[in-house]
Amino acid sequence: MNSFGRLFRVSIFGESHGPAVGIIIDGCPAGIDLAPEDFTTDIERRKGGTQKGTTPRQEADLPIFQSGVFKGKTTGAPLTVLFENNNTRSGDYEKQRSFPRPGHADFVASKKFGGYEDFRGGGHFSGRLTVCLVAAGVVAKKVLGAVDVKASILEIGGEQDLEKGLQKAIDAKDSVGGIVECVVSGLPIGLGEPFFDSVESVIAHAAFAIPAVKGIEFGAGFLAAKMFGVSHNDTLLDMEGHTESNNAGGVVGGISNGNKLVFRVAIKPTSSTPKEQESLNWETGEVEKFSIKGRHDLCIALRVPPVLEAVAAMAMADLMLLEGVRPRVVQ
Amino acid sequence: MNSFGRLFRVSIFGESHGPAVGIIIDGCPAGIDLAPEDFTTDIERRKGGTQKGTTPRQEADLPIFQSGVFKGKTTGAPLTVLFENNNTRSGDYEKQRSFPRPGHADFVASKKFGGYEDFRGGGHFSGRLTVCLVAAGVVAKKVLGAVDVKASILEIGGEQDLEKGLQKAIDAKDSVGGIVECVVSGLPIGLGEPFFDSVESVIAHAAFAIPAVKGIEFGAGFLAAKMFGVSHNDTLLDMEGHTESNNAGGVVGGISNGNKLVFRVAIKPTSSTPKEQESLNWETGEVEKFSIKGRHDLCIALRVPPVLEAVAAMAMADLMLLEGVRPRVVQ
Amino acid sequence: MNSFGRLFRVSIFGESHGPAVGIIIDGCPAGIDLAPEDFTTDIERRKGGTQKGTTPRQEADLPIFQSGVFKGKTTGAPLTVLFENNNTRSGDYEKQRSFPRPGHADFVASKKFGGYEDFRGGGHFSGRLTVCLVAAGVVAKKVLGAVDVKASILEIGGEQDLEKGLQKAIDAKDSVGGIVECVVSGLPIGLGEPFFDSVESVIAHAAFAIPAVKGIEFGAGFLAAKMFGVSHNDTLLDMEGHTESNNAGGVVGGISNGNKLVFRVAIKPTSSTPKEQESLNWETGEVEKFSIKGRHDLCIALRVPPVLEAVAAMAMADLMLLEGVRPRVVQ
Amino acid sequence: MNSFGRLFRVSIFGESHGPAVGIIIDGCPAGIDLAPEDFTTDIERRKGGTQKGTTPRQEADLPIFQSGVFKGKTTGAPLTVLFENNNTRSGDYEKQRSFPRPGHADFVASKKFGGYEDFRGGGHFSGRLTVCLVAAGVVAKKVLGAVDVKASILEIGGEQDLEKGLQKAIDAKDSVGGIVECVVSGLPIGLGEPFFDSVESVIAHAAFAIPAVKGIEFGAGFLAAKMFGVSHNDTLLDMEGHTESNNAGGVVGGISNGNKLVFRVAIKPTSSTPKEQESLNWETGEVEKFSIKGRHDLCIALRVPPVLEAVAAMAMADLMLLEGVRPRVVQ
Repeated sequence: MNSFGRLFRVSIFGESHGPAVGIIIDGCPAGIDLAPEDFTTDIERRKGGTQKGTTPRQEADLPIFQSGVFKGKTTGAPLTVLFENNNTRSGDYEKQRSFPRPGHADFVASKKFGGYEDFRGGGHFSGRLTVCLVAAGVVAKKVLGAVDVKASILEIGGEQDLEKGLQKAIDAKDSVGGIVECVVSGLPIGLGEPFFDSVESVIAHAAFAIPAVKGIEFGAGFLAAKMFGVSHNDTLLDMEGHTESNNAGGVVGGISNGNKLVFRVAIKPTSSTPKEQESLNWETGEVEKFSIKGRHDLCIALRVPPVLEAVAAMAMADLMLLEGVRPRVVQ
Repeated sequence: MNSFGRLFRVSIFGESHGPAVGIIIDGCPAGIDLAPEDFTTDIERRKGGTQKGTTPRQEADLPIFQSGVFKGKTTGAPLTVLFENNNTRSGDYEKQRSFPRPGHADFVASKKFGGYEDFRGGGHFSGRLTVCLVAAGVVAKKVLGAVDVKASILEIGGEQDLEKGLQKAIDAKDSVGGIVECVVSGLPIGLGEPFFDSVESVIAHAAFAIPAVKGIEFGAGFLAAKMFGVSHNDTLLDMEGHTESNNAGGVVGGISNGNKLVFRVAIKPTSSTPKEQESLNWETGEVEKFSIKGRHDLCIALRVPPVLEAVAAMAMADLMLLEGVRPRVVQ
Repeated sequence: MNSFGRLFRVSIFGESHGPAVGIIIDGCPAGIDLAPEDFTTDIERRKGGTQKGTTPRQEADLPIFQSGVFKGKTTGAPLTVLFENNNTRSGDYEKQRSFPRPGHADFVASKKFGGYEDFRGGGHFSGRLTVCLVAAGVVAKKVLGAVDVKASILEIGGEQDLEKGLQKAIDAKDSVGGIVECVVSGLPIGLGEPFFDSVESVIAHAAFAIPAVKGIEFGAGFLAAKMFGVSHNDTLLDMEGHTESNNAGGVVGGISNGNKLVFRVAIKPTSSTPKEQESLNWETGEVEKFSIKGRHDLCIALRVPPVLEAVAAMAMADLMLLEGVRPRVVQ
Repeated sequence: MNSFGRLFRVSIFGESHGPAVGIIIDGCPAGIDLAPEDFTTDIERRKGGTQKGTTPRQEADLPIFQSGVFKGKTTGAPLTVLFENNNTRSGDYEKQRSFPRPGHADFVASKKFGGYEDFRGGGHFSGRLTVCLVAAGVVAKKVLGAVDVKASILEIGGEQDLEKGLQKAIDAKDSVGGIVECVVSGLPIGLGEPFFDSVESVIAHAAFAIPAVKGIEFGAGFLAAKMFGVSHNDTLLDMEGHTESNNAGGVVGGISNGNKLVFRVAIKPTSSTPKEQESLNWETGEVEKFSIKGRHDLCIALRVPPVLEAVAAMAMADLMLLEGVRPRVVQ
C-alpha cells in the first residue's frame, strides 16, 4: 500500500509527469493552524537548488489544499494537498526508454505492472514524490508540538567536509552517496510496542520509503556489533529516564526511553550519473553502453534531510496519537 | 500492535515466566504439511545451547498446536502454536527488581504500562519470545516453497573468526555483539511497493522486531554512501533481471529485482553482562553499582540466525501472498 | 479512517463547499481500461435530476484523473480522481448555522471536531461525497469483470408503486424513505472469512458508509426470524453450489456460496424536509421552530441505487483480490 | 482476517473438536482487574442450557489465561485466553460428512479451503467459537467502564411471548429464529467516523461475525423507510445532545450523538433442525433426504444476547480507544 501510519495515515499519489502529485492525511487532529506558507521552508530545503550538485528542475511547489482545511485550521477530515507538475519534459524520457536505467525502477516497474506503468521520468517511483513526503512532514511536525526533529548531513562521498565530498563527484564526473543523521528531541517515554511495532521498526519502515536509503542504524548502530556489553549499556541516571551515554539511540526494548532518538541512514549515490554506463537494451536484447541525458543531482543526499525529518515526524506523530499523548482535537 | 503482515499475519503473545508463549498465524494457506518435527531444526539452532557463550536455560520447546492443523496439514483457519514455559526461576527476578537493568526494557515497560507489566524475566519483552518468531518462520518458509532463506554470522565482537570474537568476551568477562547476514534466493521479481511498503521497509520493520537489532543494511548498505554512482549501479544483463554485481541487495525502487536479497543486521552485545554495572536504584533513588545474577548469553548474536531467517521469511511470505504469487490453497 | 478495503483500498476526501471532492484507490490492478466517459452513466444515475423529488444542485461531475491512469489504462499506482465543486451557495448555510439540523451531522460534527469542522453544506459529511463512492464503484465494477452488480428501488414511502410513494411526499410536503435491493450475480464460491470478515460483515460495513442507510438484511433477512428451520434452509442441488431457494442471500457461514448475493437496505427519509421543524437554537439555548431553506431531495432513496452498487462492488472487488481470484495485472 | 478492531484488536481461533478455542486481545489497556470469575455470568448466559430449546453440549468453559494478566490485572501485553474442548463426540460428524448440511458452512468451507478444513462439528465455523466472542466481550465491557451494554430477546418464531414462540418450534419439531435488541447507554458524543467507519458500519461489521445473524437495523431501522422526514427526525433538546425521540438509534452522520445506541439483529432459525431435510449427497451426486443426528438448539437466538453484547462492546471499546476517551493505562 502507498500509505503509512495507523492513526495519522499518510497516502501519497502521483507521477513525475502527471498533472500533480499529492498526499492525503487521514486522522490529522482538528484545530491545527495550517497555511501554504508553513510548507515553504522545508520544500525549499528539499530543492537544494542553489547548491552545487543538485538538479535544476525547479517546480514552484505551492501546496494546494483540496480538503481538510477551513478558516486556516485543520478540520479533522481528510487533508488533501496537491502539488502541480509544471516543469516536465517528457520527451527526454520516451527516447531513453529502450534502456532500463541501472539503479532505477524502470525494469522492476515494467515487470510488476505488466508494462502499464507511467514510465515518464520514473512515474510513480520518481524522487519527485518526495515533495509529498515533505508536505506530510510539515503537518506531522505540527502534530508533534514541542518535539523537535532535525536532520543533517554527516558525510558526502565518504568525506565529512561536504564541499570536499562534492568536489570528488565533480572531479570524477560521477555521482556520490552520503550519510544523513536525524535527531528527535522531546519525545515522551513509552512510544512504540515490543516486537513488531518497535520504534525502530516503525522509523525504519518509514525511512526506507525514501528512495536511495540503503541502510539505517540507531544510536551506536553497527558499531554496537563491535562493542562490549558494559560499554554499550547506557547507565540510567534518573526517573525521567536520562542516561549517561546514548548508545541505544533513545530506544530500549523497542520503546522510547526519554533520551534523544538518534538514527542515521545511508544514501546511495544518485543512480542517474553523468558517466557512461551499461544496461540491457530492451530492443536489441544486448548489453550496451549508454548515457543518461539531462541534468541530475550529483548527490541526492543533499536533499534528504527535510525528507528524513518528514518521515520521522510522520512515524512519531502516529506513535504519539496511538499512545494518546496528542488529543484528536487541538484546543 | 504485536502482529505483523497483511495477508500472512503473525501475532505473538506470552511472557517469559507465564504459562506459555505462542503465535497465531492468520491467513496461512490451507493444505501445507505441518508436523511438530518440522520445528525441531530451527528451534534447536535458536537455542545455541551447546555453544560457548549461550545461556543454559533449556526449554523442551515442543510446539503444541491449538488450532489450524488437521490430519497433518494446515486448514486455512488461524494456526495457533503454544510453547510451554517450564524452566523458569522467577525468584531470581523479584530480587533484582530494584534496579532497572541497563539495555533492558525494565524502565520503559514500567513507564509505558504503569507498573502493571509482568516484569519477571523481562515479561513480554523477553528474548524467550523469539521462539515464537522462529515458529512463525518455520511456517513462513513452507509458504515460500522453493525460495531459500539462509542467515549466517559474519562477525562476533568485531572478529570474523568467531571463536576469537567469543574468546574476547570470555577474557573480558563481558558480552559482545555481532553482525548477521541473511540471503534470500529464488524470489520472484516484483515484490514490494514503491515508497511505504518497499521490500526494505517491510524487511526492516520485521528485523527490528528482534530484540538487540540496532541496524540494518541492504546490499552494499552503508558502504554505498562512500561509493560513486557508476560503481554502485548494478548492470542489468538479461530479461530475468540478473545483474553483474548486487550492490542493491536485490531491491531497486523498493521492488525485488530477481537477484538475491541480501541484508545484514547489527546485533548489540547482550545487555545482561556478567560485569558489574551501574543503574538507578528505584528504592534509594541513587545510581549504584550492581551485578546481574544468573547466567546469560555472552553473545546473543549466536542465536540470531534462525530468528532473522524467520522474520525475513514472514515478510517475504506476506509479500508473495499480496502479489498473488502463492495460492490460498496448496494443491 | 475514511478508507475501505484491504487490497483494493478506497479513500475519500473533500467537503461540500471546498474546491473539490475525490477518491484515491490504492491497489487497483494495472491494465484496466479507464476513461472519463466510463463514469458518466453511474454519475448521471446518482443525480436523479430529471426525476420528481430530487434536488436541483447540478454539478458537471466530470472525473479529473490526477494519477494512476496512463494511455487510457490503470497503471497499478494509486488512482486519484477529483470532482470539482462549482455549484455551491455557501451563504445559504452560514445563515442556518444557529440551528443544528435534525438528522444531519451538524451537532455531532461540532462536538467531535471541536467546532473546527467545515460546516458549509454539511462539509465532509455531505451527501455530495457519494459521487466519490460512485466513482470508486465504477472502477470496482471493472475489477469485478463478469460479476454483475445491480441495485433497484423496492419501495418508496412504504409503496411499491414508486410514483405513488413520491406523490405521498409531495402531498404531505415532507420527505420519505425507501428500500433499495442489490443483487450481485456471478460471484465465485469462497469469498469472505468466517467470523470477522464475513461477506455480510464486509458488505454491511460498506453499505452503512452511505448516509441515510439505517438497516441491512441478507436474503430472507428479518423475515428469517419468523421462519422455521426447514423452510429457511436452502437445499443444495449440485457441486456448483446452486440451491433451490435463496433465503441465505448467497452467503452461508459468512462465505459466498455460488448463488446470487441479495441484500436490501433501509433508507431513512431525507433529513432536510420542507416542513417546519424544531431544534435547539445554539445562540438562544432554546428549542425553537425553524425551516430549512433551499431545495432538497424529497426522497434520497431515489439516488441510492448507483451508490449501493458502488459500495457493494468495492467490497466484492476487495474480497476477490484477497482471495486471489483477480490478478494484480490485467492482461 | 479473523480479527476485529484497530486499537482493541480481538483475534479468535480454534475448532469445535480441536484441543481448545480462544482469543488474543491485542491493545487491551493495562491495569484492568481480570479474574476467571469475571467471565462466569456471560458464559453461563451463552450456554442457555437450562432453557427449553438449547443444546445439551455442556462445556466447563473455564477461561485459562495464557498471557497478559499478572497479579490479577491486565498488563498491556497481548491477552490470551483459552477454553478447552472436552465435550466433543467427533464420531457423530464423520458419519454425516457425506451430506453438506443446509445452512451450515460445510459446502463453502470445503470449496474455500480445498477440502483441508477441519470439518468435525463445523470446525472453525462452529458456534462453539462464540464463547470466544463472549470472552472478548467480558474484557471489552471492562474497558467501557460506566458504559452499559444490554441485549435482550424481542421475539422468537415471530412471537413476543417467548414461551409461545418456543412451543411453536417444539410442536413443529423444527427450529425457529428470533430478533435480539441491544442497547448501549452512556456512550460519549463523537465516536465513529463519517463514511467508512461510521458507528453503524463498525457495529454491523461486528454483529455479522455472529453466525446466524442475517439482518441489522438501527433505531427505527426498516420502519424508517416508511416514515416521513419530520416524524423520523429527532428533535435536539440540549447541548448534551439529548433528543426527544430516538429514531436515529443514537447515531447521526455515522457518529454517536449522546443518546442510547439501539440496534436489533435478525437471527435465522437454527440450521440443524430435527426435521428431515434434503441436500446433495457428495458420494452419490444425488439430492437425497437425510436427518441431522444429535441434539441441537431449537432456537439459537436464545443464546445470542451475551454474544451480541460482546461484539457491541468490542466495537465500542475500539472506538473509544480510537477517540482517546479511554487511557492506555487504567489508574
